[in-house]
Amino acid sequence: MDSRTIGGGQLGRMLVEAANRLNIKTIILDAPFSPAKQINSLQHIDGSFSDPSAIKTLSSKCHILTTEIEHVDTQILGEIEKEGKVEVHPSSETIKIIQDKFTQKEHLTSKGLPTTQSIPVQRSRHEILTAGEQLGYPCMLKSRTLSYDGRGNFVVSSAESVTEIIKTLPDQPLYVEKWAEFEKELAVVVIRTTQGNIISYPTVETIHQSNICHLVYAPARVMESVQAKARIIAEKAISTFNGAGVFGVEMFLMKSGDILINEIAPRPHNSGHYTIEACNTSQYEAHIRAITGLPLPKLCTAMKTTSIMLNILGGETPDEHHQICRKALETPGATVHLYGKLESRKSRKMGHVTIVGSSMSECDYRLANILTSNADSMTNPSSLTLSLPVVSIIMGSDSDLPRMRNAANILSEFGIPFEITIVSAHRTPDRMFRYAREAAGRGIKVIIAGAGGAAHLPGMVAALTTLPVIGVPVELKTLGGVDSLHSIVQMPRGVPVATVAINNSTNAALLAIRMLGITEKSIRRRLCEFALEKEDEVLKKAEAFEQGKWQM
Amino acid sequence: MDSRTIGGGQLGRMLVEAANRLNIKTIILDAPFSPAKQINSLQHIDGSFSDPSAIKTLSSKCHILTTEIEHVDTQILGEIEKEGKVEVHPSSETIKIIQDKFTQKEHLTSKGLPTTQSIPVQRSRHEILTAGEQLGYPCMLKSRTLSYDGRGNFVVSSAESVTEIIKTLPDQPLYVEKWAEFEKELAVVVIRTTQGNIISYPTVETIHQSNICHLVYAPARVMESVQAKARIIAEKAISTFNGAGVFGVEMFLMKSGDILINEIAPRPHNSGHYTIEACNTSQYEAHIRAITGLPLPKLCTAMKTTSIMLNILGGETPDEHHQICRKALETPGATVHLYGKLESRKSRKMGHVTIVGSSMSECDYRLANILTSNADSMTNPSSLTLSLPVVSIIMGSDSDLPRMRNAANILSEFGIPFEITIVSAHRTPDRMFRYAREAAGRGIKVIIAGAGGAAHLPGMVAALTTLPVIGVPVELKTLGGVDSLHSIVQMPRGVPVATVAINNSTNAALLAIRMLGITEKSIRRRLCEFALEKEDEVLKKAEAFEQGKWQM
Repeated sequence: MDSRTIGGGQLGRMLVEAANRLNIKTIILDAPFSPAKQINSLQHIDGSFSDPSAIKTLSSKCHILTTEIEHVDTQILGEIEKEGKVEVHPSSETIKIIQDKFTQKEHLTSKGLPTTQSIPVQRSRHEILTAGEQLGYPCMLKSRTLSYDGRGNFVVSSAESVTEIIKTLPDQPLYVEKWAEFEKELAVVVIRTTQGNIISYPTVETIHQSNICHLVYAPARVMESVQAKARIIAEKAISTFNGAGVFGVEMFLMKSGDILINEIAPRPHNSGHYTIEACNTSQYEAHIRAITGLPLPKLCTAMKTTSIMLNILGGETPDEHHQICRKALETPGATVHLYGKLESRKSRKMGHVTIVGSSMSECDYRLANILTSNADSMTNPSSLTLSLPVVSIIMGSDSDLPRMRNAANILSEFGIPFEITIVSAHRTPDRMFRYAREAAGRGIKVIIAGAGGAAHLPGMVAALTTLPVIGVPVELKTLGGVDSLHSIVQMPRGVPVATVAINNSTNAALLAIRMLGITEKSIRRRLCEFALEKEDEVLKKAEAFEQGKWQM
Repeated sequence: MDSRTIGGGQLGRMLVEAANRLNIKTIILDAPFSPAKQINSLQHIDGSFSDPSAIKTLSSKCHILTTEIEHVDTQILGEIEKEGKVEVHPSSETIKIIQDKFTQKEHLTSKGLPTTQSIPVQRSRHEILTAGEQLGYPCMLKSRTLSYDGRGNFVVSSAESVTEIIKTLPDQPLYVEKWAEFEKELAVVVIRTTQGNIISYPTVETIHQSNICHLVYAPARVMESVQAKARIIAEKAISTFNGAGVFGVEMFLMKSGDILINEIAPRPHNSGHYTIEACNTSQYEAHIRAITGLPLPKLCTAMKTTSIMLNILGGETPDEHHQICRKALETPGATVHLYGKLESRKSRKMGHVTIVGSSMSECDYRLANILTSNADSMTNPSSLTLSLPVVSIIMGSDSDLPRMRNAANILSEFGIPFEITIVSAHRTPDRMFRYAREAAGRGIKVIIAGAGGAAHLPGMVAALTTLPVIGVPVELKTLGGVDSLHSIVQMPRGVPVATVAINNSTNAALLAIRMLGITEKSIRRRLCEFALEKEDEVLKKAEAFEQGKWQM
């Protein structure tokens, strides 16, 4: 197949790994022994990706040229495009727009896409103050070019602080950006094919520490509708650019619920490392396929498992980051990626860990195991409480508790994380509404609802969620529970409630466990054991009867 | 970290890929440009892995020596072990026992492990006939050494055929093996750590074509108890050997239900390729971790998704295998691994495809898409029928069908694969028993059971499976269905049935869909749409009422 060439940091390395699997040859332009060069025995080029002559040499050796970094010389890329012998992806024009953050924002705004309000300024107190007045304080003063991981970004807390800040400013074009009061930071990796088709990966949540990406939660811990909205915005944004490849779109989820684009990277993105383990096709293979015109089916971005990504940063000593690697190797479902960097420096990205699990709570638990120091990890049981509930037990009144307690006991016995609370359909209708609407988003998988009398709770909750709802008719004095039973079981067509016997919250819990067992083998195993125990009990009693004990 | 060295075929290549991610250096001994050398820029050694002096040179450059092939010179490995400067994994003694298939079987038998009965023979008609008489015909005549992919294996159909066969025999030590009347071929990859700890991967099912591995189903499509038994036998077998690393254990599941060990490979195994995409930690990384003494948590072998592996073999022309790669690239959830082999030959292993999916039926569907020629794939709807049912609708009598048909209609509407049949608790008790016991193993995830009157079917089925069972009380004349309702809903503690309203098989299907939706986002989305349609219907009717249409 085709050969092509790229920059050689960790992103380049993971691109080479993907290309290797497809028998696609790669030649790297970067410093000697750079990470990507190590995993490819071909002859590479030693040089800088900002040196036009090195780029020119590189282009003479390949059919397709791509880049793992946006800070490249776009003029020479443009000239190579014009010559027409080598394809350049993404296009030099796209990289040129994106590498100047203010031009990028102007471009997005002109296309009707939501982004933070920004004003370009010179390195002048007057201009910065005018912009600050217009956008309000605090605001951000940022370099338009060559900045990454928060470098070149300054917080302007007030008009008074401008004089001080201006002294530390780099000699680069600047702009002032409105302060974004965000709730969370989201990111979406988007694929653009050579035919201009757009496919996005799931929306993830990024957690930064000191301006460097620390954790990525995939999918983002927000409602599905918010995830969908972020993907749509990201897809729209990337459809405005030319050239093929993957793009990282960083966004703010504002406290208002709005989503604003923060910035775009014209290359694989740190927030997409998790795709190697957690998606059908990784962002790296997607980039290789996109620029070479290989097929990219729509579902190639689908997740096969929930995931958290943790960046491994260099510490104070050359080996400090080895400790977190060790902890990760001890943790099931964690995969360590080290980048082969020749030396460790503080805060340098040395590698990353991808954690997978059957639920976000399992991933969280595994992450806690990695981040906890050796002394705590196995002895401190509090880390167990990190498991988020998957079953929710609710009841209309505290008087239902004696009947509903068995459900909690069974779930405890099976080690299923659950929550238990009171939600009344008739006395707290707003609470019930919110509860039912949000349950799925919080990670709840099955709801057990107990109610007596008119017993509207299970049915109303079922009407407000798509989760399976199990109803427990609670016996009241007057009709012995038949009223509750009929209220819960005789639902109209379209809104099912899985009804169990009167007062039988034990079976409600066992039914919930069977539902969870559909996809969890370990739970099915426990259910088998439980059945065997019960069989044993009956057989022992049978034996007692047969030995004449029925007479007593 | 440590450096080490290995052979350089596809297994070596995937070992190097895993080592690269851990910053572990590897030096390869094999022919120039062999697959493993291509993805590692270090200086390798050109030579043969059967040449003692090349192995000696290699050992002078590393701390740990391992191999991706059992046909190596074990004498030189033994000498290197004795020198004590370099660790050899697995030990030369282990490789020596395994590389002679008869010695291997003798070893297993001496440890009380089940394997096919075998008798060593010379290249002599008399000896072969004596052994054939003892073991019966047909039987297998096999080379004790240097055979793989069925090479060196001969079927002896009768005493008369021996004279003919003997002419074609290679000049190698031989043995006669009893014919194994097997139902399926199973395999388990087992990890042995430097401390002698044993961890196994799930039991898989291998399908051979012309003696070469064609497909691997992970997990094996057999009952969980059979899977467990195979793992236990494989773990026991590997615990009898020395040295660290992963081992492939091939087994026969006999028609009698017995499991026999066929043969063992002291290295990563073709049946474990799927672990790269489908397990927490791949067999390749597990091998690297095992021989370097890095941690291997128990759950590192757990599957994160169901999988099928397809080997890509060379065809008649150098490019023939590219077609299957293309189909795989067009299929979501399929990952292509090409090995960089310099030339394609007929039946040569050029690469493999790993298919992942949320269920075996999804994997099967994707596999069918890859194996179907271009002309058929998208136009032939019959490939859709490959989807195995996940919901099973059963009823006690054909007279229940008018009430149960709605369940089938709803499942059809949602595109959920289902089956529908009659199972009577009272009239076909054996059939019911078998049905309930086997449902989970066939891939059924939810059972909908309709019954009238005494209505024992849902409860009895629930007592025989751990799947969630949804009961539909069918109305009979006498008591209007209240009898069926009570029979189904008032189950004893311990055996829950999710009961819906009388005759309401619509809700039974919707409930089953909600259960499946716990882990299937696309199903949840369809449920939301369904709810919106229903909301719309009611709102339209409400509007009609408000416009005075209630009077009509």
